[in-house]
Amino acid sequence: MEKDWTGLSKKELDKMEKIAKSAAKLFNEKGYLETSMDDVSSAARLSKGGIYHYFSSKNEILFFISANFMDLLLRGLEEELKKIEDCFSKIKYFISRHIQFYARYISEAKTVIHEAHLLPPEYFKVIADKERQYHQIVSDILFDYFEGNIPKDQLKTIAFILFGTCNGIYYWYDPRGSITPQNLSEIIGDILCGGLRGYEKKRKIKSRG
Amino acid sequence: MEKDWTGLSKKELDKMEKIAKSAAKLFNEKGYLETSMDDVSSAARLSKGGIYHYFSSKNEILFFISANFMDLLLRGLEEELKKIEDCFSKIKYFISRHIQFYARYISEAKTVIHEAHLLPPEYFKVIADKERQYHQIVSDILFDYFEGNIPKDQLKTIAFILFGTCNGIYYWYDPRGSITPQNLSEIIGDILCGGLRGYEKKRKIKSRG
Repeated sequence: MEKDWTGLSKKELDKMEKIAKSAAKLFNEKGYLETSMDDVSSAARLSKGGIYHYFSSKNEILFFISANFMDLLLRGLEEELKKIEDCFSKIKYFISRHIQFYARYISEAKTVIHEAHLLPPEYFKVIADKERQYHQIVSDILFDYFEGNIPKDQLKTIAFILFGTCNGIYYWYDPRGSITPQNLSEIIGDILCGGLRGYEKKRKIKSRG
Repeated sequence: MEKDWTGLSKKELDKMEKIAKSAAKLFNEKGYLETSMDDVSSAARLSKGGIYHYFSSKNEILFFISANFMDLLLRGLEEELKKIEDCFSKIKYFISRHIQFYARYISEAKTVIHEAHLLPPEYFKVIADKERQYHQIVSDILFDYFEGNIPKDQLKTIAFILFGTCNGIYYWYDPRGSITPQNLSEIIGDILCGGLRGYEKKRKIKSRG
């Protein structure tokens, strides 16, 4: 299942994004299952007919939000990373970019994390594929860092730890507080890169026996 | 709101735990809101009347699961930590203990993370208080590590990073795979402690600068 929104005019897409933004906020506040199309219609200040003109179901709105947010994370990422030389700078860039997108699109980000799994399987598959792609990019950086010399399950574990740390912020981080997104990126980047350095050192000592 | 189950017999508590275990599995598979008392009754192989004898509502089951799991995490933790000298060993012990409880009580752990916020406010407050208490224990270890010499918001951030990493595993980690709970504890412990060491070094250099 792959929705195609490419034929739409700028005006139509803007309208859809406005609806999606209102819906994402509602999904965060009430939960996806508890939100009705009536709620979306009041929040977006559009008639229900107006909403159905753009989205045939609530699932389609959730899919639109999730696919768009994942596309935002993916777009240009690999090209941007290619311009950066060393692995730690790549990891720090990735973390900082991830946190910036989260800070700018909190409702959308939380919707993907907390609600996207409620999509019907054929919709969810598309989102899961995009998540896998995003994940693979981090795995590739880590693979380079370890110069390929790391068992697959350990690599996977470390990639998940990195993601767990980046996504863990969804539960508590308020970008309007005293810790700016840049502060947070530095703290997480320093801890994870420092940690990786220590981990790799220990691994090398162990392998020398 | 504080439920009191202390007056119950061992036999009654066992029965309640059996019901709670079946329910936690269902909540994981179907989601809390989508699970009915009928589902719980079939899964636990008890009549609906039998379930209602122990729990007056689905909320009460969710509360029982969540409160019990948090109590399990909290029970004895401070005493155990007191016996450990240095901060890194305390952090590693905390991580390893957290992962072990997760591996043993996956359904219950996931229920607390994914569903407990759906409890009515007066029930949820009790769980949130227990979570705060658990969180405070980690903050205290970190506070000692930095010898009190760290701004409150940074301390909070680092404590959340530690939790994000421990709780991030709920999304992907299968203790039956090739990475054992002990392996995972070591990897996470090494990365976080190595990271903290690097972070503290940089902070000291900065503060001298």
